[in-house]
Amino acid sequence: MAQVVTAYDTIAAISTPPGEGAISIVRLSGETALDVANAVFKGKDLSQVPSHTINYGHIIDPQTDETLDEVMVSVMRAPKTFTREDVIEINCHGGIVATNRILQLLLGSGARLAEPGEFTKRAFLNGRIDLTQAESVMDLIRAKTDRAMQVAVNQLDGNLQHLIQNLRQEILEVLAQVEVNIDYPEYDTDQMTTQMLLEKAELVKKSVAQLLQTAGQGKVLREGLATAIVGRPNVGKSSLLNHMLHEDKAIVTDVAGTTRDVLEEYVNVRGVPLKLVDTAGIHDTEDKVEKIGVERSRQAITKADLILLVLDQSQPLTAEDRQLLAATADKKRIVILNKQDLPAQLDEGELLQLVTPAEVLPTSVLTSAGMDDLDNRIADLFFGGIENSQSTVMVSNSRQIGLLRQAQASLDAVIDGINAGMPVDLVQIDMTAAWDQLGEITGEAAPDELITQLFSQFCLGK
Amino acid sequence: MAQVVTAYDTIAAISTPPGEGAISIVRLSGETALDVANAVFKGKDLSQVPSHTINYGHIIDPQTDETLDEVMVSVMRAPKTFTREDVIEINCHGGIVATNRILQLLLGSGARLAEPGEFTKRAFLNGRIDLTQAESVMDLIRAKTDRAMQVAVNQLDGNLQHLIQNLRQEILEVLAQVEVNIDYPEYDTDQMTTQMLLEKAELVKKSVAQLLQTAGQGKVLREGLATAIVGRPNVGKSSLLNHMLHEDKAIVTDVAGTTRDVLEEYVNVRGVPLKLVDTAGIHDTEDKVEKIGVERSRQAITKADLILLVLDQSQPLTAEDRQLLAATADKKRIVILNKQDLPAQLDEGELLQLVTPAEVLPTSVLTSAGMDDLDNRIADLFFGGIENSQSTVMVSNSRQIGLLRQAQASLDAVIDGINAGMPVDLVQIDMTAAWDQLGEITGEAAPDELITQLFSQFCLGK
Repeated sequence: MAQVVTAYDTIAAISTPPGEGAISIVRLSGETALDVANAVFKGKDLSQVPSHTINYGHIIDPQTDETLDEVMVSVMRAPKTFTREDVIEINCHGGIVATNRILQLLLGSGARLAEPGEFTKRAFLNGRIDLTQAESVMDLIRAKTDRAMQVAVNQLDGNLQHLIQNLRQEILEVLAQVEVNIDYPEYDTDQMTTQMLLEKAELVKKSVAQLLQTAGQGKVLREGLATAIVGRPNVGKSSLLNHMLHEDKAIVTDVAGTTRDVLEEYVNVRGVPLKLVDTAGIHDTEDKVEKIGVERSRQAITKADLILLVLDQSQPLTAEDRQLLAATADKKRIVILNKQDLPAQLDEGELLQLVTPAEVLPTSVLTSAGMDDLDNRIADLFFGGIENSQSTVMVSNSRQIGLLRQAQASLDAVIDGINAGMPVDLVQIDMTAAWDQLGEITGEAAPDELITQLFSQFCLGK
Repeated sequence: MAQVVTAYDTIAAISTPPGEGAISIVRLSGETALDVANAVFKGKDLSQVPSHTINYGHIIDPQTDETLDEVMVSVMRAPKTFTREDVIEINCHGGIVATNRILQLLLGSGARLAEPGEFTKRAFLNGRIDLTQAESVMDLIRAKTDRAMQVAVNQLDGNLQHLIQNLRQEILEVLAQVEVNIDYPEYDTDQMTTQMLLEKAELVKKSVAQLLQTAGQGKVLREGLATAIVGRPNVGKSSLLNHMLHEDKAIVTDVAGTTRDVLEEYVNVRGVPLKLVDTAGIHDTEDKVEKIGVERSRQAITKADLILLVLDQSQPLTAEDRQLLAATADKKRIVILNKQDLPAQLDEGELLQLVTPAEVLPTSVLTSAGMDDLDNRIADLFFGGIENSQSTVMVSNSRQIGLLRQAQASLDAVIDGINAGMPVDLVQIDMTAAWDQLGEITGEAAPDELITQLFSQFCLGK
């Protein structure tokens, strides 16, 4: 990782979401950012203004003298900027045409169109943030709930980075000691060395395991929990869905990188973002969701991480109910005994042969009875182990989780090797691998291709 | 209109388009904007920083001490701000949840949620801009083409305002003179007074008429020119449409204020935004547009301001062609003689009995022959009279056009009244009406309800 600030060419991009809004920002970063901005700005000489000031003026096409917009230009000089380079932000009056014209003008005046994530990549390459912080920037933008946001902010603050760096420091110290012992074989310290390696490997492994324990929750917070509402017709699925989509819980988002036609729908349940599976079209008619048959449900069940299986307790179990109960037996599920407002007809004894009591939840969507319990149940299922997730460092993305698992395996190999009496220099290889794998998480030991690939998933202008 | 800056309560809103973007801005304006921001900002005391500076720090929930985001806060003190009040802009990491949380926090710390357009309304109420400039702000945001943007920027610069103010000044001077003459009837100046009134009315009327001449083009630039491509099946309509939708000409926009399902599609032809009528579904299958029958076309023809009527010159005119020619006879149209790459079969003599030669344009969409001519023809149809629209002051919105027409009628009444020998004090009433109507355009004489209604059409955060 480059710790020295390198002089990069100047990049430009629109940094606000596309669309008609009150303010758009066109951002510049790089060695000549001030010159590029100055070439199209009329108001004052930006190269003479102090850093971190806001300057009123107009953007002018120098070719035609045409005024493009009335703007406020923020001048931020290196190194105290997002990228550690000179950064210019042109706040303009919004709108698609004017904002694009200004961007085109900057591109014609010496700037290059930024790649997705290139501003953040420079912040990383110039040593202002590590990879976990860079990733948290996008997690923050895409966060669906407060808790997800909190995990991202926590990571942005460098908490995961520091934890990983401490673990690497521990490994580095023991590896240095091993080197000393190997270099001076006259001191017979083999026993001491292996003992030290073993203790450190176990210590680090414990921390890694603790981090990995948060991975399940972290991933759900980050990506949402794929949830399917299933049940035979007329048990109350669409009522339940509508209930969940009300009360300011519903979050509809475009899926980044895909067309605007593809929407994902999330519901925020006590901080858990439920990503509703297979709700396409259900808003057209209230009843459509009721018509989804068992076969269709099977597909939803396969895709979902959580099943809300709705039964009607005012009627006896049907063959279809039993099929759905069987199809979801291996899944994380909540079996909702709906229509408690009606007399019970369902044979609870029979039901309890098919499900555990802990899975069952009596409700009446009609009277809202049991709806809070449902929210609590969902939250408990996913946050049962983690009381105070706000201060807990969590890992949430697959890359980090995968590397932690690799590091765990390397540490296991160290421990097993020592226990099997393997020579220190072989054990040392696995310990070094763990050091590298942890370093790849923060980016201190990340290959260029990884970095390129990682930032390419960012949004434009970030 | 209040020219004195009034102390208003502090308003807050998200000023960037909704969605996942690199940067979001939450904006505050009002007497206590600094205090509200200070209550949730950790980094430095914002009340101590100089105006027009950018300040790094974190947004903290003061109730829970929870960190919500890493931000850059712009502090702009009155009066040199957008609203002429203290303005704070919090630039945060984008994303829906974090941005909303920050807004909620500000609303809990003494700010009130801004109404649509309320920031711009304050700029108006505090005398920084007039109504024509306020309207141009939204026109700029919604501009579909460069030319439309140019008209808006021109108006934002105050050019229309100054023109109207000059006209009002002319009227005011003559009205003052009339007052003097009425107050001192001993001087027999009636003849002089009416002569002066007549000259001024004709002078002002001439300017108003010139402005109204730009109204057609201005409105087209602002709202787009509703255009329908019609013709019987297989004459090349869908090819023409596809041709127009290519080459970076197509602009797809959400319609402000409606659901995201309703899209309007624009094509930029030499700066003229063509709003394509009746293109729903045509992207599904290339041929669907070809299947639109005469009945369906009639609806499109009714809605459209410009008809592109496509004929196949490799075949004789059909009854359907003749029906479409008759149905579009009263419309602004271009009759496209397509398939010039094939041998001619169409009887030009017969055609020229139904259309004027100036309406006909030979093309071959297949070989792109005549496509540039089509663009030129469309541009000529709408900009023929206005060569250098960049420097021309244009009126583009219906409110302004309506008031100009009223003023024109009042001025006509002045002229007619004098010519009919009506007494000066009656003529004076019409002259005063013209003065008021022009004042309503700039907002100097606009009723409160109008102002409220006008700003309510703005987007949130502006």
